[in-house]
Amino acid sequence: MTVKLIVMYTQPEDQAVFDEHYLGVHMPLVAKIPGLERAETGKIGAVLDGGEQTYYRVAELYFADQATMEAAFGSAEGAATAQDYAKIAPPGSRMLVEVLDD
Amino acid sequence: MTVKLIVMYTQPEDQAVFDEHYLGVHMPLVAKIPGLERAETGKIGAVLDGGEQTYYRVAELYFADQATMEAAFGSAEGAATAQDYAKIAPPGSRMLVEVLDD
Repeated sequence: MTVKLIVMYTQPEDQAVFDEHYLGVHMPLVAKIPGLERAETGKIGAVLDGGEQTYYRVAELYFADQATMEAAFGSAEGAATAQDYAKIAPPGSRMLVEVLDD
Repeated sequence: MTVKLIVMYTQPEDQAVFDEHYLGVHMPLVAKIPGLERAETGKIGAVLDGGEQTYYRVAELYFADQATMEAAFGSAEGAATAQDYAKIAPPGSRMLVEVLDD
């Protein structure tokens, strides 16, 4: 029962500054999280629902199950990542847990 | 340059009715879309940002590139899926295109 942490970043004030920190500092922290199976990141290129371009970037972190994800959040590496997230995430950014269908 | 269509469904009026249609009718339509590399679906289990439980389900459709995704949207199977989406998606549902980082 794979679980996935979905992080959706709203538009940053300065995209270049955001990306530099995101790719240079944040993702290396993410990569150290124990139990992380896979991380997938990307930029929102288009909105097809007629709504606003709310989000700038999305990151998805895959874990084998809920317990592994909780252990990751409880680790020192998870705490360092959360601390850095708090520094960079623009207001209105979302953080959701998805339980994948089989 | 993999691209991904992210569909985020807001809370349906009746989750059981929604899931029955979603899994029994909608996903079989999705599976027929030409050029689809992978589809990943799941339910939102928790919200970690202190905000509202805006979304009920998420679906992500992977395509090799932008051109393949556009061809998929232009196909009869893509149109059938879009028509069914319009029937089931609760108001406020989002449909975003993500360009994945390498």
